[in-house]
Amino acid sequence: MGRVTARHRVVRIRDGRASARSDAVAVEEPLVVRVGEATVTLTMRTPGDDFDLVAGWLVSEGAVAQTADIVGMRLCRDEQNTVEVVLAEGVEPPAPRAFATTSACGVCGADAIVDVRDALRWVVAGDQVTLELDTLAKLPDLLRAYQRAFDRTGGLHAAGVFTATGEPVHVREDVGRHNAVDKVVGAALRDGRLPLAGHVLQVSGRASVEVVHKAVNAGIPALAAVSAPSSLAVDLAKECGLTLLGFVRDGGMNVYSRPDRVVL
Amino acid sequence: MGRVTARHRVVRIRDGRASARSDAVAVEEPLVVRVGEATVTLTMRTPGDDFDLVAGWLVSEGAVAQTADIVGMRLCRDEQNTVEVVLAEGVEPPAPRAFATTSACGVCGADAIVDVRDALRWVVAGDQVTLELDTLAKLPDLLRAYQRAFDRTGGLHAAGVFTATGEPVHVREDVGRHNAVDKVVGAALRDGRLPLAGHVLQVSGRASVEVVHKAVNAGIPALAAVSAPSSLAVDLAKECGLTLLGFVRDGGMNVYSRPDRVVL
Repeated sequence: MGRVTARHRVVRIRDGRASARSDAVAVEEPLVVRVGEATVTLTMRTPGDDFDLVAGWLVSEGAVAQTADIVGMRLCRDEQNTVEVVLAEGVEPPAPRAFATTSACGVCGADAIVDVRDALRWVVAGDQVTLELDTLAKLPDLLRAYQRAFDRTGGLHAAGVFTATGEPVHVREDVGRHNAVDKVVGAALRDGRLPLAGHVLQVSGRASVEVVHKAVNAGIPALAAVSAPSSLAVDLAKECGLTLLGFVRDGGMNVYSRPDRVVL
Repeated sequence: MGRVTARHRVVRIRDGRASARSDAVAVEEPLVVRVGEATVTLTMRTPGDDFDLVAGWLVSEGAVAQTADIVGMRLCRDEQNTVEVVLAEGVEPPAPRAFATTSACGVCGADAIVDVRDALRWVVAGDQVTLELDTLAKLPDLLRAYQRAFDRTGGLHAAGVFTATGEPVHVREDVGRHNAVDKVVGAALRDGRLPLAGHVLQVSGRASVEVVHKAVNAGIPALAAVSAPSSLAVDLAKECGLTLLGFVRDGGMNVYSRPDRVVL
């Protein structure tokens, strides 16, 4: 496992006075993912839990859905920060994004969202889980409690998969919001827990459409964000029947879709 | 110009009580960029300032450096959220990322950073600008003052280019941190202001290596972030001679590189 933090000499200025000191900074390094000879993605990430990150990314891209879809992963010996993946027979690697999106017509709007929904492996709309308000309100603090142990930099995002009663299942950190989500989803896949029916995904930042997509691709019926969702995140959540919570803080929250799962 | 915010019906829960209301949410929609027949990128962005976004992205990718490098841009009539770009003769579009990164060897570490530095069009290390502490300390508030006017969602990032005396030159918002930076750089390019020698780039969030790269690609000698930088951001800033400021808040800040430009 790589370093999560690095120390740098910093000039700290407070009240108009400067002092030199050593400060912890979140490490950001590239990770290259290869399937066979092909490089399928490069992402900037915080080292650590790299296999979780790769597995979760493959789930998020819709390429992989169960533990056995990945035959093996290993760190490349000759090249730093490179993971080589062997997929099971019949499992195709995700197409590079640039190709997946050459057909621009309808990349936004209702048609595209229905397409995204129809391509999902699992349907979260029928998930009967109920979530107590008190439990939901505690998730950001649980996430932060985990973060305090690891994040000495103020620069890391966190994502956590929790049971409906608020028990943490997987919690991961990364400089990238999306990577933190991929890491928890990958950890769940490698644990044989997919689909994550009846679970909640709590994230430290905002809820973009990509985070919603990652949640439903993992079969998670509820996504809670400390900050705001985007409009397309709300649209996709509604279409997929995901419970989307934003501004989960100070005991309050906004419910953007499927409020029926939230019990006051 | 598209919508920056959309209204959604929300269940608002405060103090254990739920009420239905209409709430503003930041719009996130895809933008496809085409050069000739080729789709060169797709990004999720907040509509508005799309030509600035595209121009700035081309600068950030190193493809474009002066106003005349872009002959024209237009919104595609047949397809939503698609900008077609005509580049000047001899100006090559950026290679798709998946291809640019097939050679993983050395994507991280000192060699790669030196490569990045050597590929830059402008050298910011020699920029003689001096920045008063009082001026720097005010930039986050100036950025927020601009944001308050536009952001009713709590979900938008902002980036601003300021003169060394704190005069705003360009300020832009987006759901994506990187897009907000591309938008201000693109606005500067289209204004004929590149390289942005003697200027400061203030961003609302963290400073990742990509934001540092975008700053130096625009010839900006100083980058200030409200939140933390990553380790690779610090490394690249040091290598390029960029003044990197983090945690610029409450009158204080941390200076991670080139503190000589900051006057107490």
